[in-house]
Amino acid sequence: MSQQQPVKPFLEVLNGRRQNVPPVWMMRQAGRYLPEYRELRATAGSFLDLCFNPEWAAEVTLQPIRHFGFDAAIIFSDILVVPHALGRSVRFEAGEGPRLDPLDTPEQIKTLARAADFGKLEPVYEALRRVRAALDPKVTLIGFCGAPWTVATYMVAGRGTPDQAPARMLAYREPDAFAAIIDVLVENSIQYLLGQLNAGADVLQIFDTWAGVLPPREFARWSIEPTRRIVEGVRAKVPDAKIIGFPRGAGAQLPGYVEATRVDGVSIDWTAEPSLISERVQTRVAVQGNLDPLALIAGGAALDRAVDDALASYAKGRYIFNLGHGIQPETPIAHVEQMLARVRGYRG
Amino acid sequence: MSQQQPVKPFLEVLNGRRQNVPPVWMMRQAGRYLPEYRELRATAGSFLDLCFNPEWAAEVTLQPIRHFGFDAAIIFSDILVVPHALGRSVRFEAGEGPRLDPLDTPEQIKTLARAADFGKLEPVYEALRRVRAALDPKVTLIGFCGAPWTVATYMVAGRGTPDQAPARMLAYREPDAFAAIIDVLVENSIQYLLGQLNAGADVLQIFDTWAGVLPPREFARWSIEPTRRIVEGVRAKVPDAKIIGFPRGAGAQLPGYVEATRVDGVSIDWTAEPSLISERVQTRVAVQGNLDPLALIAGGAALDRAVDDALASYAKGRYIFNLGHGIQPETPIAHVEQMLARVRGYRG
Repeated sequence: MSQQQPVKPFLEVLNGRRQNVPPVWMMRQAGRYLPEYRELRATAGSFLDLCFNPEWAAEVTLQPIRHFGFDAAIIFSDILVVPHALGRSVRFEAGEGPRLDPLDTPEQIKTLARAADFGKLEPVYEALRRVRAALDPKVTLIGFCGAPWTVATYMVAGRGTPDQAPARMLAYREPDAFAAIIDVLVENSIQYLLGQLNAGADVLQIFDTWAGVLPPREFARWSIEPTRRIVEGVRAKVPDAKIIGFPRGAGAQLPGYVEATRVDGVSIDWTAEPSLISERVQTRVAVQGNLDPLALIAGGAALDRAVDDALASYAKGRYIFNLGHGIQPETPIAHVEQMLARVRGYRG
Repeated sequence: MSQQQPVKPFLEVLNGRRQNVPPVWMMRQAGRYLPEYRELRATAGSFLDLCFNPEWAAEVTLQPIRHFGFDAAIIFSDILVVPHALGRSVRFEAGEGPRLDPLDTPEQIKTLARAADFGKLEPVYEALRRVRAALDPKVTLIGFCGAPWTVATYMVAGRGTPDQAPARMLAYREPDAFAAIIDVLVENSIQYLLGQLNAGADVLQIFDTWAGVLPPREFARWSIEPTRRIVEGVRAKVPDAKIIGFPRGAGAQLPGYVEATRVDGVSIDWTAEPSLISERVQTRVAVQGNLDPLALIAGGAALDRAVDDALASYAKGRYIFNLGHGIQPETPIAHVEQMLARVRGYRG
């Protein structure tokens, strides 16, 4: 009798097999809404200290799995570890979001390292190995990186800004210099994702949080094309690598993104239009999303309705239940439980 | 021989007749990028003082028409004059955006006046009459209001916020109370728009700047339905009233918006997906947009390319050239001239 690997429902969906009860996890599920996270966070120094301590990072990655039995764990880290490994100064100040030294002239961009110091990312790989060893084999382990466009918006401006105008402006005025940043991020993201696969990640997700501020020509050049190159680069080494894209705010540009990048799945935000997704996106790839995080804070009938809307729109196809963006710190635990019960009670 | 009214190219487009050279204007064309505006603004007291002084408001409305010969003038005002006329405190502090007293509990909402004091809006009507009298008859005069959803987001939070979460949350938690704000805004916006038509506006535009943060169910209820009621209410009195909607960020929800609201035209932002617009929106209504305001600041080859993209995408149909959002104060005048020369040189 051969020993069988336990089935991972999340991976099944990415492999083309719809599940009767959609697998479920939440973006930022290891986070401040969880008391056990807040407790560890209070003793762990800076945010990057937490990301780069394999014991702590593994522990907070596992906390939501123990608490809620989610179908996927996502390694606790940040999209800005890649610029950090490229030698850029990256700080997280409490309540403020990230701060970097801006990189916004062609002269400065020429000084950008071409290759990351992957030794700096070794703690992420070690955390993945620890999570892998501890994780129920039915649970999928997700590694991730930021898409080059989104990472570059922070590197250029040195912080988050409304509509990420500084990077958009640099891309208009100095497209060659901007492309040099993107190229560095493409190459190093490929290596970083391969390292995460090697350390035990089952699936990779590429977060393009700021894709939605780009006009079509720029969306094609700065969001789609770098993501396509990353997918191609990872698959050149690991042909069956499973990859999910998340071009937040892409709206009607999603079908084009899915076709061109060749991702296996796509995360959708809470503003997605259901018929576009079911007719032109879910026919090609698995869909993951898209509960409004505010509905999860609101709870009650509004939450039930929002969960039901997502299930009615997407659960007939290949579907992974998730939020449309990260869970917010003020979200009550009871509302997460209410959401889970409703998703797991789905019979479609 | 009968005397003929001069043709207004902008109105022609809304009446179903495509123009070989698209009419052109710019959102916020009366604004700080213009030296003559900055000069008047410096002497005019507060922003609301400027809006409510008919002589000044008419003058700044006409400035961009004299400077650039645009095909439309839009009355200089603000979407928050309606809450002001409803007795809410509305202040504009330099460099900060609007401030109102928040209206975020069912108890407070019960105190909201049901009818505006339209005497407070008389200066807007007087400014329209003055502009009408002074305007080249080939130039279209646009009146406007904010869509109830967008106006309500400011009334609830008391200010602009990322994603307008306070109003979204109130709408989830207290839908009946929130609907009461929307109902008041629908009724008073109808009266305000009829007043603007009566004072000489040729066309009305309804700005729903924050439509794009809503999930589909909420988009239908809070953006589409109130706008539909306003269009219906205005046309009940003025059956041939021409109305343009601008649900910014609506993405793939635009075809549904256009069908349900029965607007004559729709403004599109710079992230619109061209094939969705040309196949499912422009087939029904006139399209107005959608140059990225940052491309206008950037100028040069990036601006030429962006203008050409908009013309190539939309000028074969019923089209009014515009920006995808308001022009920004730092925009060089020379770039506006570069844009205009390119649009007016179009032969499609």
